[in-house]
Amino acid sequence: MSKNSTKIAVVLLSGGLDSSITLAHALKEGFQCYALTINYQQRHKVEIEAAKKVAERLGVIAHKIIDLDLRTFGGSALTSDEAVPKNRTQTLMACEIPVTYVPARNTVFLSIALAWAESLKAFDIFLGVNAVDYSGYPDCRPEFIRAFEKLANLGTKAGVEQTGNFKIHSPLITLSKKEIIKMGHILGLDFSLTHSCYDPNESGKACGLCDSCVLRLEGFKEAGLVDPIRYERVGL
Amino acid sequence: MSKNSTKIAVVLLSGGLDSSITLAHALKEGFQCYALTINYQQRHKVEIEAAKKVAERLGVIAHKIIDLDLRTFGGSALTSDEAVPKNRTQTLMACEIPVTYVPARNTVFLSIALAWAESLKAFDIFLGVNAVDYSGYPDCRPEFIRAFEKLANLGTKAGVEQTGNFKIHSPLITLSKKEIIKMGHILGLDFSLTHSCYDPNESGKACGLCDSCVLRLEGFKEAGLVDPIRYERVGL
Repeated sequence: MSKNSTKIAVVLLSGGLDSSITLAHALKEGFQCYALTINYQQRHKVEIEAAKKVAERLGVIAHKIIDLDLRTFGGSALTSDEAVPKNRTQTLMACEIPVTYVPARNTVFLSIALAWAESLKAFDIFLGVNAVDYSGYPDCRPEFIRAFEKLANLGTKAGVEQTGNFKIHSPLITLSKKEIIKMGHILGLDFSLTHSCYDPNESGKACGLCDSCVLRLEGFKEAGLVDPIRYERVGL
Repeated sequence: MSKNSTKIAVVLLSGGLDSSITLAHALKEGFQCYALTINYQQRHKVEIEAAKKVAERLGVIAHKIIDLDLRTFGGSALTSDEAVPKNRTQTLMACEIPVTYVPARNTVFLSIALAWAESLKAFDIFLGVNAVDYSGYPDCRPEFIRAFEKLANLGTKAGVEQTGNFKIHSPLITLSKKEIIKMGHILGLDFSLTHSCYDPNESGKACGLCDSCVLRLEGFKEAGLVDPIRYERVGL
């Protein structure tokens, strides 16, 4: 592909820190971006609102919000009324796959992104999985990403007719939360638009104690930056 | 697994001939079945009604119908107002991937089935892809099924913790339509419950001329059986 040709990509955008930084990165790389948000009936719906704000501010060609009720299957604290763990250290988080794991979530998300990408004749899909999630979530590992890439090229018309080669980009996969936040800072992302908490209160304020809040707060601290979002309380 | 232990499986059920026979086969194999139908806003919604009838008649533990709007992405005659090809011979069908191909459909369907299977602690997923589709649809090929199986075991908690091994069953994959229909006959499936047409009329009657009707009609003829469903007209 020549330098001047238009590169288009589908970017999975949850409205969280990592996917927002991934979108900023894809734009910086010169891709015209189509943002995809899956409303899977997660308990932290405030993420969807964050995704809308981020997509609008960063400037995407289109932003689609697709409904898919994963709550009907259960199997996760994020799609049920099960309590979300609070005040855990990073060491504790790394010991086991947490109850916030949603069965096959990234497989489902990537497959829907693939469907849109093929319709758009786009061959690049961006996903903000990272090394911290890697310790806990099986579908954030490099071998999972490679396996999906292989599947995408086998299971599509575009892959079979070799009109292009699907590539799954996971630019954050080997980075720590500190490095990810520094990357977002360099890319000029307005962090106040993003949302990470698994268990926000009714007004959408982050709890400050769930795994996601703990990782985010630690990351900002280690990066020497101030997290502009409001927290209900800050633990640890 | 001992002979007496309960085997459970998720079966993708569209309400068409192939998926209904696949469900009958899975039940015969001794699986307690959870039927999954994806309402992807396809133009032949009468399939959903057929799926309900088949699931009820054959006896499943549960039948879930999940909404996912693939129409929003376009890219297929089945999810748009584009005309469905009529009166094509099987030789012509085998020449190219048809416009009825839905981008990444089986990847999406299998990933949603995987999400449910993992929640249920089921490791067996059945999908009614077959050799005739193989000539046209990339996501009906054995290498696609194997790639998805690998992905399933990499991208899930159950796969990583080795509590089980996901297996994607595609019992019809090497069979011709004639052989599939004979199999359905032996399994005692009431074919009148099923629906195959890509372009039914308002009352749900099959057109008799689309690729799906042509394949079905030829299959029944070659199997020496009578197709009990009603057709608007019969071509070729």
